[in-house]
Amino acid sequence: MEKQILGLDPGLATLGFGAIICNQNQAQLRDTSVNMLDCGVITTSADTEMGQRLRTLYEDLHTLIEELQPDLVAIEKLFFYRMGNTILVAQARGVIMLVLAQHNLPYVEFTPAQIKQALTGYGNAEKYEVQQAVARELNLDCIPHPDDAADGLAVALTAWFQF
Amino acid sequence: MEKQILGLDPGLATLGFGAIICNQNQAQLRDTSVNMLDCGVITTSADTEMGQRLRTLYEDLHTLIEELQPDLVAIEKLFFYRMGNTILVAQARGVIMLVLAQHNLPYVEFTPAQIKQALTGYGNAEKYEVQQAVARELNLDCIPHPDDAADGLAVALTAWFQF
Repeated sequence: MEKQILGLDPGLATLGFGAIICNQNQAQLRDTSVNMLDCGVITTSADTEMGQRLRTLYEDLHTLIEELQPDLVAIEKLFFYRMGNTILVAQARGVIMLVLAQHNLPYVEFTPAQIKQALTGYGNAEKYEVQQAVARELNLDCIPHPDDAADGLAVALTAWFQF
Repeated sequence: MEKQILGLDPGLATLGFGAIICNQNQAQLRDTSVNMLDCGVITTSADTEMGQRLRTLYEDLHTLIEELQPDLVAIEKLFFYRMGNTILVAQARGVIMLVLAQHNLPYVEFTPAQIKQALTGYGNAEKYEVQQAVARELNLDCIPHPDDAADGLAVALTAWFQF
């Protein structure tokens, strides 16, 4: 049975996403049973008023989910990293969680350390090591760009490794 | 000309709101030119899944705005106060800002200190002093309950005092 997982790396300026399709009956054969379906970013401009940025995020994410029709969403957990930025990202994350609920989509959450652990085997891996693992797991010729799209795929793969 | 201001005290468990109606031509006669229109709270249960709580907030706030049809929204600014709670409140605030944008509603933001200053004349006022000022300014017989509803009115009055 095929299952589609949409991974999200939440942000207000850039929301990274990566969709993978996997075969649940071949869970032990990761390299042949999981493939990239799509990846990219939803962006909003810092020049735009906050409410309008959240509205863009809301509408674009609705459109993305309607197009992809994922079975499961995997989303990166939010941590305090920079004072002002955390509030902005949390406001965007609230809108993302709303859209998932409006589509009745189940979701799983992972910390950055859990994602690094799942992809590379250790929780303190560098960003490029995670990206290389994403390319390797999905048999891609090169690392997906921009970084946030690769991060979206990394979250999706973390969910896939759990099943 | 009458103007209606909706004040919001953002929260995930409890969103306080207070609506006032004021006469812009009598800006110098505050006690006779501003009245309470409505106040109350939108609540979501901590037992409910996050996405569903945000969905309740989204839908109830849409209904409230459609009923009240305010001209302006005044909203309390978010500060870091408790680690975990700040993310929850910011997620709720993101949904609130989205709803305001979807209604094309102009809004103003005030810090807690600005609200205290506007209502009592000093930025370090106690909560009950602000509440007493709300009751006095709106000629109410008693302080509105719950506290979050009174806080919503305080934000709305702060916006009114600016015009």
